[in-house]
Amino acid sequence: MTFAASSAQQSGFRWVACASTGNTSASMAAYAARGNMHSLVLIPEGKISWGKLSQSLDYGALTCQLRTDFDGCVRILNELVRQKPVYLLNSVNPYRIEGQKTAAIELMEQLAWEPPDHIIVPGGNLGKQFGDRKALLEMRELKLISRLPKLSIIQAQGANPFYRSVREFGGKKIEAMTADTLATAIRIGNPASWKKALRVLRATGGEVEQVTEVEIAVAKAEIGADGIGCEPASAVTLAGLKKLRRSGFVKPGESVVLILTGHLLKDPTSPLNSIGRSF
Amino acid sequence: MTFAASSAQQSGFRWVACASTGNTSASMAAYAARGNMHSLVLIPEGKISWGKLSQSLDYGALTCQLRTDFDGCVRILNELVRQKPVYLLNSVNPYRIEGQKTAAIELMEQLAWEPPDHIIVPGGNLGKQFGDRKALLEMRELKLISRLPKLSIIQAQGANPFYRSVREFGGKKIEAMTADTLATAIRIGNPASWKKALRVLRATGGEVEQVTEVEIAVAKAEIGADGIGCEPASAVTLAGLKKLRRSGFVKPGESVVLILTGHLLKDPTSPLNSIGRSF
Repeated sequence: MTFAASSAQQSGFRWVACASTGNTSASMAAYAARGNMHSLVLIPEGKISWGKLSQSLDYGALTCQLRTDFDGCVRILNELVRQKPVYLLNSVNPYRIEGQKTAAIELMEQLAWEPPDHIIVPGGNLGKQFGDRKALLEMRELKLISRLPKLSIIQAQGANPFYRSVREFGGKKIEAMTADTLATAIRIGNPASWKKALRVLRATGGEVEQVTEVEIAVAKAEIGADGIGCEPASAVTLAGLKKLRRSGFVKPGESVVLILTGHLLKDPTSPLNSIGRSF
Repeated sequence: MTFAASSAQQSGFRWVACASTGNTSASMAAYAARGNMHSLVLIPEGKISWGKLSQSLDYGALTCQLRTDFDGCVRILNELVRQKPVYLLNSVNPYRIEGQKTAAIELMEQLAWEPPDHIIVPGGNLGKQFGDRKALLEMRELKLISRLPKLSIIQAQGANPFYRSVREFGGKKIEAMTADTLATAIRIGNPASWKKALRVLRATGGEVEQVTEVEIAVAKAEIGADGIGCEPASAVTLAGLKKLRRSGFVKPGESVVLILTGHLLKDPTSPLNSIGRSF
C-alpha cells in the first residue's frame, strides 16, 4: 500500500479511497495516516469483521458502511472518483499490484529462492494473485528463481463467480452473483480482476477450486489448533488443498505454500461463533 | 513463551496453565498447541477483550471465564497447581522471564546496539519489566551495550498498586486493590512481581507514573492517527511519556522507546467505543 499511497501523494491528491471487505481498508487507512492524507473507506454494512472495522476507525479513515454489498461499494466508488479528486486505491490501480508483489518476493527469499511446487491463495477480488504472478515472472526473468510454482485460487462456494467462469464457461465470461459466505474477506460476487486471474492460472498451470462453508470452518479450526490461526477467508487455502490432493492435482511429496491472508485477530467473533458456548 | 512451554514438556507435564488478562493466554495457548500440549486459561469474566478471547479459543485452550478479577484468577490457579499436575506459566515462572528477555534483545539489535535514553513500558503484573532488565544487564555484561537505558513503568490510575507502593510507601510494601480500567491488559490490583519491578527501577534509574482513563484514550487515538495503533494498555506509555516530559524526568532531545505491548486488533471494540457513532 506504500507504493500506491506514494503515487497518490506525488500526483497531488489529498484523498485516497477504496471499497473493501476490510483488509484493504485497514492497510490503506494506516498508510494514508502515515502519509498525512485523508482516507475514505466504503464497506458493506454489517459484512466486515470487527477487527478490520476497528482498524479503519483507529487510523482515522472516514469509514462509511453502505447498505449494499462489496460490489455495490465498488460501483459507488467508481462513480465518486469520476466526479471528485479522490485517488482510487483498489487493485485496479497498477501501483497496488506493485505493492502486492512483495508478498511473493518475501516468500521466495524466505524459501532461499527455491520455489514450492504449489502456492494456494484465497480468491476474492482477484488482484492479489496477479501481484503474485507478476512477481514470480519478474523473479524468473531476473534469474532469482528457475521455475514457476503452480498458483491455484480457491473460492468459497457461496462466492464463486471465478470458479464458475472457468469451470462452466472456460473463462470466456463471468456472471456476477450475489455473494454470501462467512469468509467475509472474499465475499465478492463481481471480481474486478477476473481476467488477470485467468492469466495467472494459465501462466503458472494453477487450478481453481471451491469449498463449502463447513469445509472452511473445519480447515480454520485445524489451523487454529496448530497454534497459527487465521481469519475464515484464509482457511479456504487448506480446505482447497485437501480437494486438490483428492483430485490428484497436488501429488504426494510435492511442496505447497498456503498463503494465510488475514490474521485470526482480523475476525475475533469467528471462533466464538463456531464454539457456541461459554462456561 | 517457547522457552517456558519447552520447560514444561521436558518436565513431563501435559497441561500448562495461566491466569491472564488476555495476551499471556493467547501466547501460551498458541505455543501449547504447537507443542501438542493441553492448555488451561483462567480469565476474569467479561474483562478481557474479544480479540484475546478469540485467540485462546481458536488455539484450543480450555478457556474458563471466572466470576472474579485477574487477581482472583491467580489465587485460584495457585491453588490448582498445588493439587494437580499442571505447569504454571505466569511470570512467576523463571522460564517465562527468559522468554520475555527477547523483546529487549531484539530492540537493541534493531537500534544497532545503541541504547535509547529511556524505555517506557506499561505496568500490569510487572513480570515483563523484569525480563527487560535481565536482558539489559546481561547485554551490558556481554559488552553488547555500554550503558543501561532508564526503564520507566506506567500504570493506569485505576490499577496503580505499584505506583502507590513507590510513591506512598517508598516501595516497602504494596496494598492490593480492586483494579478498574479500560486498559484491561493491565487491570491488575495485586501484581505478583512488584518487588522485581522495584529492582528494575533501582537498577536503571527509571520512574513510575500513573495516567488517567482520559489520558490513555487521547494517547491511544494519537497512536492510531499515526497509522500504528495499539490496544489501550499500550497507550499508557505515550500518556506516561507526556507526564515524564512535563516533570522534566525525560529531557528535551533525549531518545525514548515506547513499547506497545498489544496490537490494536487485540481490542477491536475500543475504537468503536471511543467514536461512539456510525453513519
